[in-house]
Order: sequence, then C-alpha cells, then structure tokens
Amino acid sequence: MSIEITVGQTEYFPFTGKIPYEGSDSPNHLAFKYYDESRLVGGKSMKEHLRFAVCYWHTFCWGGGDPFGSSTRQLPWSTSGDPLRAAKDKLDAAFEFFSKLGVPYYTFHDRDMAPEGGTLEDSERHLRELVALAQEKQAASGVKLLWGTSNLFSHPRYMNGAATNPDFAVLTQAAAQIKAALEATVELGGENYVFWGGREGYGTLLNTDMKREREHSAQFFRLARDYGRSIGFNGTFLIEPKPMEPMKHQYDHDAATTIQFLNEFDLQDDFKLNVEANHATLAGHTFAHDLQVASDAGLLGSMDANRGDAQNGWDTDQFPTNLYDTIEAMLIILDNGGLPGGINFDAKIRRNSVDLDDLFIAHIGGMDTFARGLLIAHELREKSDLLKLKQDRYASYNTGAGARFEAGSLSLGDLRDLAVKQGEPQSISGKQELYENIINQYIR
Amino acid sequence: MSIEITVGQTEYFPFTGKIPYEGSDSPNHLAFKYYDESRLVGGKSMKEHLRFAVCYWHTFCWGGGDPFGSSTRQLPWSTSGDPLRAAKDKLDAAFEFFSKLGVPYYTFHDRDMAPEGGTLEDSERHLRELVALAQEKQAASGVKLLWGTSNLFSHPRYMNGAATNPDFAVLTQAAAQIKAALEATVELGGENYVFWGGREGYGTLLNTDMKREREHSAQFFRLARDYGRSIGFNGTFLIEPKPMEPMKHQYDHDAATTIQFLNEFDLQDDFKLNVEANHATLAGHTFAHDLQVASDAGLLGSMDANRGDAQNGWDTDQFPTNLYDTIEAMLIILDNGGLPGGINFDAKIRRNSVDLDDLFIAHIGGMDTFARGLLIAHELREKSDLLKLKQDRYASYNTGAGARFEAGSLSLGDLRDLAVKQGEPQSISGKQELYENIINQYIR
Amino acid sequence: MSIEITVGQTEYFPFTGKIPYEGSDSPNHLAFKYYDESRLVGGKSMKEHLRFAVCYWHTFCWGGGDPFGSSTRQLPWSTSGDPLRAAKDKLDAAFEFFSKLGVPYYTFHDRDMAPEGGTLEDSERHLRELVALAQEKQAASGVKLLWGTSNLFSHPRYMNGAATNPDFAVLTQAAAQIKAALEATVELGGENYVFWGGREGYGTLLNTDMKREREHSAQFFRLARDYGRSIGFNGTFLIEPKPMEPMKHQYDHDAATTIQFLNEFDLQDDFKLNVEANHATLAGHTFAHDLQVASDAGLLGSMDANRGDAQNGWDTDQFPTNLYDTIEAMLIILDNGGLPGGINFDAKIRRNSVDLDDLFIAHIGGMDTFARGLLIAHELREKSDLLKLKQDRYASYNTGAGARFEAGSLSLGDLRDLAVKQGEPQSISGKQELYENIINQYIR
Amino acid sequence: MSIEITVGQTEYFPFTGKIPYEGSDSPNHLAFKYYDESRLVGGKSMKEHLRFAVCYWHTFCWGGGDPFGSSTRQLPWSTSGDPLRAAKDKLDAAFEFFSKLGVPYYTFHDRDMAPEGGTLEDSERHLRELVALAQEKQAASGVKLLWGTSNLFSHPRYMNGAATNPDFAVLTQAAAQIKAALEATVELGGENYVFWGGREGYGTLLNTDMKREREHSAQFFRLARDYGRSIGFNGTFLIEPKPMEPMKHQYDHDAATTIQFLNEFDLQDDFKLNVEANHATLAGHTFAHDLQVASDAGLLGSMDANRGDAQNGWDTDQFPTNLYDTIEAMLIILDNGGLPGGINFDAKIRRNSVDLDDLFIAHIGGMDTFARGLLIAHELREKSDLLKLKQDRYASYNTGAGARFEAGSLSLGDLRDLAVKQGEPQSISGKQELYENIINQYIR
Repeated sequence: MSIEITVGQTEYFPFTGKIPYEGSDSPNHLAFKYYDESRLVGGKSMKEHLRFAVCYWHTFCWGGGDPFGSSTRQLPWSTSGDPLRAAKDKLDAAFEFFSKLGVPYYTFHDRDMAPEGGTLEDSERHLRELVALAQEKQAASGVKLLWGTSNLFSHPRYMNGAATNPDFAVLTQAAAQIKAALEATVELGGENYVFWGGREGYGTLLNTDMKREREHSAQFFRLARDYGRSIGFNGTFLIEPKPMEPMKHQYDHDAATTIQFLNEFDLQDDFKLNVEANHATLAGHTFAHDLQVASDAGLLGSMDANRGDAQNGWDTDQFPTNLYDTIEAMLIILDNGGLPGGINFDAKIRRNSVDLDDLFIAHIGGMDTFARGLLIAHELREKSDLLKLKQDRYASYNTGAGARFEAGSLSLGDLRDLAVKQGEPQSISGKQELYENIINQYIR
Repeated sequence: MSIEITVGQTEYFPFTGKIPYEGSDSPNHLAFKYYDESRLVGGKSMKEHLRFAVCYWHTFCWGGGDPFGSSTRQLPWSTSGDPLRAAKDKLDAAFEFFSKLGVPYYTFHDRDMAPEGGTLEDSERHLRELVALAQEKQAASGVKLLWGTSNLFSHPRYMNGAATNPDFAVLTQAAAQIKAALEATVELGGENYVFWGGREGYGTLLNTDMKREREHSAQFFRLARDYGRSIGFNGTFLIEPKPMEPMKHQYDHDAATTIQFLNEFDLQDDFKLNVEANHATLAGHTFAHDLQVASDAGLLGSMDANRGDAQNGWDTDQFPTNLYDTIEAMLIILDNGGLPGGINFDAKIRRNSVDLDDLFIAHIGGMDTFARGLLIAHELREKSDLLKLKQDRYASYNTGAGARFEAGSLSLGDLRDLAVKQGEPQSISGKQELYENIINQYIR
Repeated sequence: MSIEITVGQTEYFPFTGKIPYEGSDSPNHLAFKYYDESRLVGGKSMKEHLRFAVCYWHTFCWGGGDPFGSSTRQLPWSTSGDPLRAAKDKLDAAFEFFSKLGVPYYTFHDRDMAPEGGTLEDSERHLRELVALAQEKQAASGVKLLWGTSNLFSHPRYMNGAATNPDFAVLTQAAAQIKAALEATVELGGENYVFWGGREGYGTLLNTDMKREREHSAQFFRLARDYGRSIGFNGTFLIEPKPMEPMKHQYDHDAATTIQFLNEFDLQDDFKLNVEANHATLAGHTFAHDLQVASDAGLLGSMDANRGDAQNGWDTDQFPTNLYDTIEAMLIILDNGGLPGGINFDAKIRRNSVDLDDLFIAHIGGMDTFARGLLIAHELREKSDLLKLKQDRYASYNTGAGARFEAGSLSLGDLRDLAVKQGEPQSISGKQELYENIINQYIR
Repeated sequence: MSIEITVGQTEYFPFTGKIPYEGSDSPNHLAFKYYDESRLVGGKSMKEHLRFAVCYWHTFCWGGGDPFGSSTRQLPWSTSGDPLRAAKDKLDAAFEFFSKLGVPYYTFHDRDMAPEGGTLEDSERHLRELVALAQEKQAASGVKLLWGTSNLFSHPRYMNGAATNPDFAVLTQAAAQIKAALEATVELGGENYVFWGGREGYGTLLNTDMKREREHSAQFFRLARDYGRSIGFNGTFLIEPKPMEPMKHQYDHDAATTIQFLNEFDLQDDFKLNVEANHATLAGHTFAHDLQVASDAGLLGSMDANRGDAQNGWDTDQFPTNLYDTIEAMLIILDNGGLPGGINFDAKIRRNSVDLDDLFIAHIGGMDTFARGLLIAHELREKSDLLKLKQDRYASYNTGAGARFEAGSLSLGDLRDLAVKQGEPQSISGKQELYENIINQYIR
C-alpha cells in the first residue's frame, strides 16, 4: 500500500506536498536525490530494504533545549494550553509529516503521544484515547508502527532507575507504564517493542548493588515479555544498548554486554538488539562493529540511525549523512538478510535549525545517505572483489588440517606438531588500504 | 615461608638489601611506608590479602622504547651477546629484585624468560633450560609463580592474530607456544595461567570475518584447557580483557564482553578474568567497574595493577599510586573474599626513569598504595556506615511485595495494580556526595 | 568581618545553624573536618588563602534537569507563581545558605538573581530591584560578591552566539545584558567580572566565518571593558575557557587559546582567566595544566572548582573531592601568590541528591578537600624535597654556558661546538615515580 | 619539469612503472582514478594545487614495529650490514618510488637519510655524504625537497626533551643536529623547514618548570632561524602542533597554542604552521578546524596529510581516504590561496600491509582522495550556493549600525539603546543539515 498524504484541521507544513524523487542533480532542497522508494535493488524495493521510520520525540516533541539553554523551536502544533488538545494537534502534524515524507513507518514513546496525567489511571486513559486516534491516522495514511516504547527516563521518579530502582515502589510505576505501552503497541499493530534503559545504571558504584539491580532488570523484562505474549504481541522485543548518558554507566553498555545479559538471563529467544550509531560510538566502537556483533549473534533486530561527533562525548543524535557509515551498515544489513525492524531516525535537527523545512531537509539527507549506502553496498557485493578478498583470507580453514581444527578433531599437541613440520609461516598482507580504496571507488 | 634474598654471580642492585617497612614518616625512599607484610588486617596478613607479583617483562625486558624512540634504560643483565647467557643473567637479576622487594610472587611470558630460537624446537629447548634454572631460584628464594603466559603478540608472524589469524599455519605456531608455556607453568608450580590476546582483533572490519575468528579463538582455548588439564594444571585459566591497542579492536574488549564469550562457548568453568586497571579505563570504565562486573559473575580471578592517564588514549601502564583506585578495588576484593590470583604489577616505570633504584621506588609506591587501600577499605567496612547506607537503599525488596517480585511470584499486571494503589513514590536521595565524603574521611 | 547568619521570612535550612569545624574524626556529616577558617597556614588564614564562593545558579536555580529528564529537586524558595517574589525568596535562601556555610563570597549571573522581563527595560528594572535587596543582604551577612556575570547562553535568542552571533541584532541584546550586569556588579562591590562564552563558537565550520566572529567578540570585550572602567569597575575581567558543550567548538577553548586571543586583541592588561577544572579536562588537559599555563602567563585570575568524570565527555560539574587535584592546584596557587579571584564552586549536586542537606554535604566535601589540599601543599613546600628536586633538574642553566644561552649570547654554531666538545650527555632520570610517592606520603 | 623515473642499481619496485591516470572506472589498483596531474582546476594544474610530498620515514625507514611488536615489513633496501651502504640503497629505493608515483616533492629527517655516527662529527659527515647523493637524485628525477627536518625524538638522549631538556648538554646536541639539518635543507633547495617537538613537553608537571622550558624552546627557535637565514635559507620555518604522544603533554598542543607561542616570542614573521590531520583530532579538533585557525592567523604553511581513528587515542597515521576530510581541507586551502608548503603524506601503511605494492596502493588512495577533494571543493565554490549561504548569515554587519560596530564607532551604551529600540530579534535558522546535504550532493 502506498502512503496517502494525511492532513488534519491545520496544515502544518503547507510549503510542501509529497517529497518527490528528482535524482542526483536536482537543485531542489526538498526532493530526494537518491531515495526512490520503488526502485529495485537486488530484487527488492528500496522501501522494503530500508524500512525507514520517523521518530515522534525528536521531531515533534523536542523544543530545542539543551543543558545550557531552553527551547528554541516554534512547534505550531504545541500551542494549545490543553495537553490533550496539544497531543491531538501533534498527532495531526506527525502524520502530515510522515505521509509527506513518504516513510512507511514511525516510532513513539507512550509520553510522546499522550501526556502524563495526574494519576496513573489518567495517564492510561490519555494513551488509550490517542491510540484510538492514531489508529485512524494509520488507516488513512498507510503509515505503520515500526515499534512502540515507553519513556522510563524523563520523569523525576526514575532518577535512580526504573526497573533497576532501589525502591520497589518506583519499579511498579515503570511496570504500569510498560503494561500500557505494550497494549498500545499491540493495538497499533506495532511490529516490534523497544526498551532503552536510560536510567538503568549508576551514578557511582559506591551506592550501588549492581548485581541485584541487573537481576531486577532481568525479572522485569521477563514479566514484560510474558505480558506482551499474553495479549498477542508476536513481534520482537528489542533492547537498545547505550554506554552512558544520562547515567555515568548504563547496564546495556554495548552490543556485546547486552548479548551477555540476554544470555545470562535466558532472554535471547524473545529479545534482539536495536543498535544505535551514536551509542556505539560513545561506547568506543564503530557503528559497523556493533551491528556486526549483533548480527553474528543472530540478534540484530533494528537500527537507530543517527551519528555522533567524534570530537565530543555526548549523544548528539545528528542526522546520518556520512556515506562511509551507511555503506558499512548496509553491507552488514544485506549480509544479515535485512532486519525484522528497520531504520529509525533517532536523530534530531540542531537546536538552531528552527525553520519548519529543516525537519524535511534533515530527513531527506538521512534517507538519501542510506539509499546511497544501499546502492553502493549492493554494487560492492555484485561487482567488486571486496567480499571475495575477505573470504579468501580464511581459505586455509576450508580444507585439510585447518578444517579438521574447526571440526574439533585436532589436539593442541597435533597443532604443535604441525607447526614444527611446517616451519615459519609466510607473511601475508592484510591489505587494508586496498579495501579502503575499493570503497572509495564505488562512491560515485 | 619467608622470602630469602637470592643474588646470582653479579649483584645488580647493590644499593639496597631487603626493602624494610619503616612506617609512614620515614624519609627513606627505599622503605615501605604502609606495606608491612605480616600485619594482620581482619585476621589475615597483608601478604595474604594482596598476593603481590612482579612482572618479568616491564621490569627486566623492556628497554624504554616507545613508538617514537628507542631504548633508554641500561639493563646491566642484558649485556651479553649470547641470548641464553643474557637470559640467565636476567633470571639472576629478577630473583634478586623479587627477593629484595619481598614479593611472594612473579609472573612471566615464555619469551621474557627464554629467547626465541631459530626453530620451534630450539625455542622449546631454551624455555626448558631456563625453567629448570627458575625452579632452583624459586626454591632458593621462596618466591612463587602467580601465573605464566605466552607472548603471542610481539613476533611479526602474529601481526594478523594468533588464535584468530586467518592463516591456519600461524595458529599452529601459537598452539606450539601455548603448549610449551603450559608445560613451563606446570613445572614451576604456577597457580594460574593467563591469556592476553593482544593481536586477537582487527584493524578493519572490511577484511575480517569476526564470527569465524571468534570461533577459532574459542576452539583454541578449549584445546589449551584440555592440554593443561591433561598435564596436571589444576589452577585457573585467566583471560585478560583489553579493548584496543595494538589492534583497532580487540575481541576481549572488557569484562562483560569476555564473560559473554566465555558463556557463549561454555568456558566459564575453567576460565576467569584477569582485570587490568588501564585496560578497563581504555574501555571507558573505571577499574572498579570491571572488577565488580567480574566479581558479580563469579569470575574475578586476578588483577593487573597499574593505572592509565585520563588525558591520553593508550596503555601507559603507570604504577598504581592513586588511593581512590586502590580503595575501591580493595572494597571489591574484600567483598569477593580475596582472589585466586593476586595483584600483579603490570606496570612500567616511565622511560626516562633510568636509575636502577627507580624500579624499587616505583614498586614500593604501588605496594604502599595498595596496602593503604586495604587498610582504608577494611576500616570503611568495619567502622563507617558506607556499606549499610548502600544496603538500606534496597530494603524495599527484602520483604513484602518487593520480595515477592524478586521471587518471581508477581506478574506485570500485579505490579501495575500495586502502582495504582500506592500512587507516586517518595523522592529518595542517592546521596552520592555523602558517600564520597566518607571515603575522603577515611583517607588519613 | 565575620559572617552573620542571615535568614529571611522563611528559614529554608532549619536543620542546621552555622556549619562548625569539628576536626577529622567527627562523625557529623554537617561539620567541617579540615576547613577551619581562621587557622593560619604560612601566616595567612585558610579563609584568606581559599576565598571560597558559592554559585547562585547550580545551588539555587537548577532543578535537576538533564538532557533526558526534567527537574527532580524541590526548591522551596521557588514555589511562588510571581517571578519577582520567587526571586526574592531565592535571595533569602541563598544568603541563609552562604552564611550558614560560612563562605566569604558568592557569584551570580544576572538571570540567576532576577528574572528576564517582557522587555529589556523590564529585565533591567528587575535586576536593579534585586540588586538593591542583595546589597542589604550583603551588609547584614558580611558575605561579599566575588564576581558577577551575565547569562548569554540560555535564552533561545543566543542559539547562534551572543557576541559572535551572525545577526547584529542579537549582539545588541547581549550588549544590553552586559551593561546591566556590569552595573549590578559595581553596585554590589563585585571584585571581578566573568565572561563565559557558552554559545561563542560553532556547530559546524561549514556555515561559520570564524575569523569575523572572533573579531566581533574582541570588539565586544573592548566595549564591555571600556564601559566597566567608565562606571568605576576596577577589578579584573575574567574569561572562562571551555572547549565545547553546548557548542561543538567554543572559541575560548582552553587557557592557551584564550591567552592567544587576549594577546591578539591586546586585552591582556584588563582580562585574566577563570580556570575551571572540568573545562580543562574536557579540553584534554589536567586542571593543574591549565592553572599552570595561566599562571606562567601572569594571567591566573580565579578558579571554578569542580571535577569531571574521566569516563564521559560532558561537563558533569561534580564537587571537587579528589585530593590529588586540590593538592596540585594549591601548589600552583601558592606559587602564584594567591588569586585576585577565589575558589568558586561551579559545581552541582547530582540530580538525584534531592535532600536539602545534600547541598551542605556537597559544599563541605569540596571545602574540606581544598582545605586539605592547602595543608598538604603547604607542607610539601615546607618539609619535603619536592620543589628542590624540581629546581635542581635545571641547574645547568644557572651558570656557565647554560646561563649564557638563556641570556641570548650564544649562537647555534656555539651550541654545536659545545656539543662536539662535550660528547654524549649523561642519562638523567626524571624520577616521576619518586615525585608521585612523595605526594602520597604527605596525604595523611 | 616533469618527473623522470630514476632507478638505482637495484630496481626495488619492478612490478610497476610510472603510475598512470586511468579514470574512475579503472579496475587497476595501481592506477590513479582521480589524480591527473596536469588537469586544470580553476586555471591551475592539480599538481600545482596539491603539491604532494612523500615522506621518507614511514615509507622507507619504518619496519612495522609498534608498542607490542617488532618489525613486520621486508625492506629490501635495508639489508646491508653497513649503515652507509644501506642508507644509499634506501635513497635509491626512495627516488625510484617518488618518481614512479610521480610526486613532485619529498620530505625527510636527517636521521632518515643518513645514519647517526659514533660522534657528532661522524653524523655530520654521513649526512653531508648522503645529501650530495640526494642532490644528484633530485637532478636526475626532477623530484624536489618540500622540507627538511631533524629527528630530535628517537635518540634516548632526548627522553627528557631536546630544546626543552632540563640538561643544557642535551640542548647543545639538539642544536648541533639542527645546524646540520638546516645546512642539508639549504643544500637540497628545500622550500621549507619543519620542527616537530615530539619530546618538548612533559611526563608530569610535578617535575617540570614549564615556563622555563618554553622560554628555552623560544630561544632555540630564534637561534635556528638566525642560523638558517645566515646560510641563505629563505623559505618558511614550520612548527607542527601535536597535543601529546610520546609525551603526556606537548607544548605545541594545537594550532591556537602554537600561534600563542609564536606571538609571545615574536616568531610569527618567520614561522608558520604545518598542520597534521591526526594531530588535530588528537587535540579534540577536526582537521578543518586547525587548518582554519592557522589560515585565519595568516599562518597556514603546510599540511601533514593522514587520518586518525576516532575510536582510539593515538597517532595512527593512516592514509587519508575520507572524502569529507579532504573536501573540507581543500575548501580552506583554496580560500587560503594555496600553501607555501604542500600536502605531505605523513602516513604509514598498516603494519600488516607487508606487500611492496601496498606502499603504492596507499599513496594512490591518498592522492586520489585529495584530488577528488579538490575537484569537489572547486565545484562547491563555483556551482553551489554553499559559500553564499555562509556569507549571507553575516550581512547585518556589512552596513548600518552593524558596520559601525565593526568599525569601532559604537559604545556599549549605544548597543544597549539599539537593543531596546529593536526589541526581540528574529529567530534565524543555522541550517546545518542543509549545508551537509549540499556537500553530499557534490560527492559524485
């Protein structure tokens, strides 16, 4: 089904209709240069490969505040003094944006879509009311929910953690939020459900029982999974690693740490990873590294697309515009046979990008960069010798003693005897510069 | 058994005898101010608590070279043109140093103790010859082997990895070295055996099959374990995490990643972790964090004591002189009930510390800082309210619904109902500043 | 004059009176262990040495928000719906706190003390009204103003810079604020005036004319200086370096960069540096380094005391509790002959430190750590051989050819001839480990 | 004059002749895809724009050692046991490589070209002997010397510094080396002379008199300049900033710090900066930032082209293959009107790139990436609205009150009155995402 432009009572972005594909020479800042949704790449459309999603929070909720300054952006959908009215206006704006941009998916936190009420039951009611409206919007526009999630980090009650809070009373609040958010996700046909544990970690180890906190967290995930399955959620649960910020240390530090956690608590059959670029780099990895780690473990579920800044140490959530990153990412995604999730733009415009068209410009830039990454990765696989060069490095394990080693039929003593017999091995170049030149040659 | 000073034909450190304990006011740079080996702390001597080891490589082999300069240090035990003679002189110097410093343990790589020969069999012969001499030295001095290990990173053949080398021929060379090093360790009564995979990682993912390399590595560990057990090694195998350097990325990135690896390949019953301070900080953690992660998993085996420099990003291996680090470390070690391994000074003097007494000064500084860390940690546990404050934070899980949650007898729906009933939780201070002040108060 | 406790209509901190000095064994969390204001150290009281100031913003204005969460702290002085009433209550709370803590100084931004109004003239009026009240408070309590400053970073109008804004209209707004803040500072007898250019920098060089922006900034400083001097401000203008955050890059990057700026634009006679610990570490320096750079240039004016976190890359503004940092800082301050400014706690409690006594605990910890740093630095200078060891390293320049080199009377050829004549120099140890051990020995 | 292939007695790279330009579709790894030396870009040939130089040290001297491993590379020109013979063979190899690659320039340290002898006078003789041969090679090949320099960091005598050594005797040795290296540079017609002060800094401030060391350094530079000018060197002296490594802190930290130093000691008329990419990133800047800082000060002299790795903290000196870096660099170079120096590949192949053709592949990759950067930067300037968008941001200073502010004819009071009159300024988008998209559009 294609996307239908869906505008509410107010048209918030009257300066554009559906963003067109115009090709790489177009001077139009509000046109795609590379993303041509129905173009086939290796037998699958770009749209199916990339499964783009726009996030609700950065795009429609965030006003531009940072640790040293207040909101800068005019959000014309947020002017009503009535929080529920404002939430509905925001829903209108969001679906107008989704549909004009032409993305197949969106993502949201419970509190992005519906305001917290005076009591838990009020908050639940607000969410149900907005979910019903969102269902109508989805039906009208054809835009679907890639995943839902719950905001367990903004409210002050979570300052010491949500599922890992030393106070059980706070954990129950978190549970209530998750329950409602799971229901909302099921209601909206969400294909996945994400957990980002922004407050699950510590400020100082001196006051923290890390072992007990991690056990609480595992128990919490189990209950969430069981509840989700009981109400018909058949999708993948996703955990999104991040090493730090807002906490000094966060438990879901990186892909490997999170996989360790899933294995330790036997959660790997229901949970996969949502790998975010800027979180990987904050953890001291490349984005590609964390994608590969997740993929190798069979646990690559989805991706939060953005980029950080190599010169500073916080989550800048910039739009992904670096071709090297998207090429490497798409090489891994193609190898992985795609994603059950998709490419969610967990990215925000700079706080001084205050024009409404900046939202479109930024998303177009990110989508084009991934579309180009897909085209180049596909071409590298089809036409270059990149993959063959890599595979050939391991040829000695494909037959003979190497293969027997892999099969487990040689002992340490056997290996030693082989070493004595063979003498000093040949020196074999890793040829890293050649691989890098090949990538550059295919950027064109 | 106490340590006997053991000098060879040449006395290399004639300017000192056994380093005495003289108390905190001593003006003598070559005396301990805090390390008093037989002083009892909580019923155990300092010596038993700390189990100090001196490493062979930094102290007796490293000449002071760095990426921009050649050797600076005069090593009077390394002047012979005959490699075997030089190795024997070095052994003399080492045991003179160990015994004058009064440490109960030492650690070594195969190639530290005995030179690589023209063939594998020569190398094996060299090692056996030196091991026989080291046995005599151990007997004479009472100094024991904390752990042995094998250098699988310095020789150019390992430039693409040892156990993870794409070329099977190189892996067999590594296996041969491990076999001989295991034999040497058993011969010398080594209590543990360490693996540090300096070259097990990648320079670029573009040319690397990380999955296959990690599988090779696991298979390699299995074979080493099986061989070790077959020749009577009953100690703990230890893996030492490091995130990077010399490789761009190393597979044993940090404690959590290494635990994940051990679990994935079912190695956790024979292998534990050797946590190094500077490796933890390079991975973006505090030393205490990685110790705690290992301890929580029941896998804290040993410690490489040193420190890094917060302003630069490489393994400076400085001597540990920061009391905050040793206090936090000793709090965890005491909680862990000690270590099967010990505290090995994987630390080197600065390359411009070219006096022979600098070696003693540096080790004295490190030992005093850990001894003081032990005294303060013990006092914090006995006299301060630090631990109680921490435990009390979790009191809500000890009884009632919190305890039922821990026991797994509440569902997500139950938690939600509790949340509704209880309403907004109380705001509870984490009091980080108080904890920090308490630590400072006990530094005295 | 000693400090008199000054409480307004409401007593906000009824749980304590004046914080007493009780010595290092006191179990009282609300007592000083080391800071004994009238204790003489080298002939000067601790109070005169340290010149502590409490900052208005973190302590009385900041609610605990961070990039991922909203306010956590209850600020009982901020409950009035009337901004001017709230500002007055805050003033009461501030002076109650200053006087109970017993600090001689405070610091503030214009917008901390008085709310922004609907127009510039309203804002000016608000500030004048509060300044008049603050004058009364100062008189009643004896607490003085170390420095005033202006907040040119929080308001959205400054998102592209204040003095460096590409839009001249914004620069005029900044000028108006500075004018009023200078007047307020003079009115309150402020001893210094600080500029921190949080928004003076760039997000991307692609859209930035750095040269023109820096020239605007210099011109702006000149005008501010001229105006300040014209209204009787005789104190020091201070620039506070910071490398980044909130901007990707800030022009006053570190001490050296800021000195370069002052020299380039001939401002060094009126301007000095306010060096902040966490800003220095974010710039890749130790705190001591940036203090020393400023001191060597004769431009060390004041200090913002706090600390960062070595494992993450943002301005955590934690309280300074690390003795190594304060010892090194005090060694430099003593060498510098003190400071025209003082030690301002630009530090905030953790956002989950929500008890009102946490404010006192945190400041007590910071003050004690600096008091102890002073005592230890003084003792190191008086009793240890630390300084002599350092000076002796340079003895070869004190006489003979070395002295002639310093005096400029040797040519390159002369030096070469000396080198040939003298042959290879002796290898001289830097003995870093010894220096580190000496520091540790004096921590007691 | 074009470059003539110049081979010595042995042809070291027989597998290739002159590297041809074959265009972007060529499958030949040993051909340029973009660097077409005589192609005109804006009226100047690529060769004149880029002024490429190959460095002697990484390419012909470095064997592949790193802090954890020994040499990996076979250097067929370094097999002679006689150091002078080996130096001559290396010279042959170097000029064969330069001329086959077709670069117009090379760069060298004294000790790269000629071995240190037993005495200073021997070393001087060696250098003179090799310089005479290099002159012949230059004449035969047409390859010229971009700059010479002296290695004052590798020899152990410099472990505590060269010009900043606390021991005057070491400073004289450094002076002797500089004198000879200046003579060699003049002899070879070197167009510039570079200083990289790898050991000019400190390991710990505790043992360092930074002020005195910097003064010695300035005096040293003065003497070098005076001597250089006296023997007919009319080129630019260049200082190469680096923040750290091998020292904990280096005095020439970054561009701004180095400019401060030049200004403080009045050296800016003879000295400019040689900005290295990886040094800029180690200092927490982008490469573009440090280039821009130098250019804005009129002190951008030359460039060391390479790249670092954003995930680790040492000087990896990788070949520059990132188009974003070269585009930004070339935008600044074009703005600067070119460089008195050039683009020197201070870059090394990975230590496991052990094939001789890897040297060519790596340089081809770097040259193509810069050539492409030039083409794209030129097109951005000619065809895109990138520069106009930037300039228009500052339009308010071009006329009216803004221009009067720039001219210094408005006071702070005048600005305040303007602010009151104009009221709240308009909110103007910085449009960073648009600028980023434009860059991406021109990569094609």
